[in-house]
Amino acid sequence: MRVIRSVSAMAAWSDRLHREGVTIGFVPTMGALHNGHRSLIRKARLACDAVVVSIFVNPSQFGPRDDFTRYPRPFRHDLSLCRAEDADIVFAPTQNGIYPRAFQTGVTVRTVSRLWEGAHRPGHFEGVATVVTKLLNLVRPRKTFLGQKDYQQAVVVRQLVADLNLGTDVIVCPTVREADGLAMSSRNAYLTDHEREAAPVLFRALKRGEGDILSGVTSAAAIQRAMRAAVAGHRLAKVDYLAVCDPETLAPVSRVRGTVVLLGAVRVGTIRLIDNLIVKRKR
Amino acid sequence: MRVIRSVSAMAAWSDRLHREGVTIGFVPTMGALHNGHRSLIRKARLACDAVVVSIFVNPSQFGPRDDFTRYPRPFRHDLSLCRAEDADIVFAPTQNGIYPRAFQTGVTVRTVSRLWEGAHRPGHFEGVATVVTKLLNLVRPRKTFLGQKDYQQAVVVRQLVADLNLGTDVIVCPTVREADGLAMSSRNAYLTDHEREAAPVLFRALKRGEGDILSGVTSAAAIQRAMRAAVAGHRLAKVDYLAVCDPETLAPVSRVRGTVVLLGAVRVGTIRLIDNLIVKRKR
Repeated sequence: MRVIRSVSAMAAWSDRLHREGVTIGFVPTMGALHNGHRSLIRKARLACDAVVVSIFVNPSQFGPRDDFTRYPRPFRHDLSLCRAEDADIVFAPTQNGIYPRAFQTGVTVRTVSRLWEGAHRPGHFEGVATVVTKLLNLVRPRKTFLGQKDYQQAVVVRQLVADLNLGTDVIVCPTVREADGLAMSSRNAYLTDHEREAAPVLFRALKRGEGDILSGVTSAAAIQRAMRAAVAGHRLAKVDYLAVCDPETLAPVSRVRGTVVLLGAVRVGTIRLIDNLIVKRKR
Repeated sequence: MRVIRSVSAMAAWSDRLHREGVTIGFVPTMGALHNGHRSLIRKARLACDAVVVSIFVNPSQFGPRDDFTRYPRPFRHDLSLCRAEDADIVFAPTQNGIYPRAFQTGVTVRTVSRLWEGAHRPGHFEGVATVVTKLLNLVRPRKTFLGQKDYQQAVVVRQLVADLNLGTDVIVCPTVREADGLAMSSRNAYLTDHEREAAPVLFRALKRGEGDILSGVTSAAAIQRAMRAAVAGHRLAKVDYLAVCDPETLAPVSRVRGTVVLLGAVRVGTIRLIDNLIVKRKR
């Protein structure tokens, strides 16, 4: 496994592999790798000849009150996880390499970025879209692996890839969870013991919504009420949103037909958690 | 020479050439090709193994009062010019191929897009940056050839390529002019005989500015006055701007040191012409 720091070395490596007809699988991350990332690297390893994992804590997708400076950066642990999963390249560029002094370009995926996380975190998805465009142009992967846990991010990236002809297949892999249902996330490390105990409430609320849909409820308002009720009563938990949405546009639906995605964001203490479930209504 | 209409066929062609180690030279155009474009294709032909000319009248870089619908589209003439210059591919995508129904992504090069043409044509450079990003991702050229006549556009594209790691060398080629100095432009076809007669006033104004600098004038205000005076008195001509600028940032300078670019936009009748000169002050 090789660690590449420089953007030009990354582009040169990728160029050479393209000339050799080698397919590249790509797992973009902000580090603090957990079993969710591990499953993405494994998928990439099976699907492609060569695997690149990028580790870059991207400042432009953090808001001014977000946790950029305290975001965990356990680089040595991340490297051993990548090595254990047989990645070929860890691409860990510097801030200056990605954003040199004269940098002034932004990429915006308009419609889908305005909803949900975009509404709660202004500028977040522009930061994501811009850095993902750069990373994809440097790595030029055949396939790019993202976790379903950040569902809206995956929708934004898929739209971005189509709209800017970035030429990679975006493959969204199932959310990996703790035993009690909490979706794995680098931010879970912030939870106090009490908060950690309360955190699965989000998953339970989504499962409640799923259960309602599978048992025949079609009114989105009723499903939302049930999901909210599952959170209410938890002293530490406060709902940002719990919504029944079209799985492609993420627009809220009023009635469940076919497949929907249940999107949720809940604050547990000071920590904001997101999660989602794709639910297909039985006929 | 082959004409490619589909974006996926373009990407596949380019992929294949990359695997073969063939270098691609790219000349992006809106068609209505003239000797300026011809010189770009010749440069590409000399510098690269394969040459792609794109012809796409990009709606998103036209404003609501601009000339999108009446922009000239002499496609057969364009094809013969490309054939005569030995281009390998004419990439002429459809509107739907470039902007499918769900399209929603924009690329903005912030600082340099706000000045001059950007101030006069809101949204223009976002349209340019977005379509150029798409074209570069589809064609993946080693070198991209642009005309100096659209100086600010070349600066925007160069910044875009650096900022999004688009991995092409941007090569800016000298403006090709008519005998009387008028810069070649597809829009010159709109000029009436009277307007055509008045049109070289812009080039003469820029030459006046150049002459002043070469004879030792360093005050930008004085140079601008002289350039404006060269236009005043022409009944049909009205200055939009005539400015002395830093050749990289395009910010106006107050005093000439080293190299500057003289940027000009003049309306002749109803037609808006732009032109520029790079001037290096003698020591």
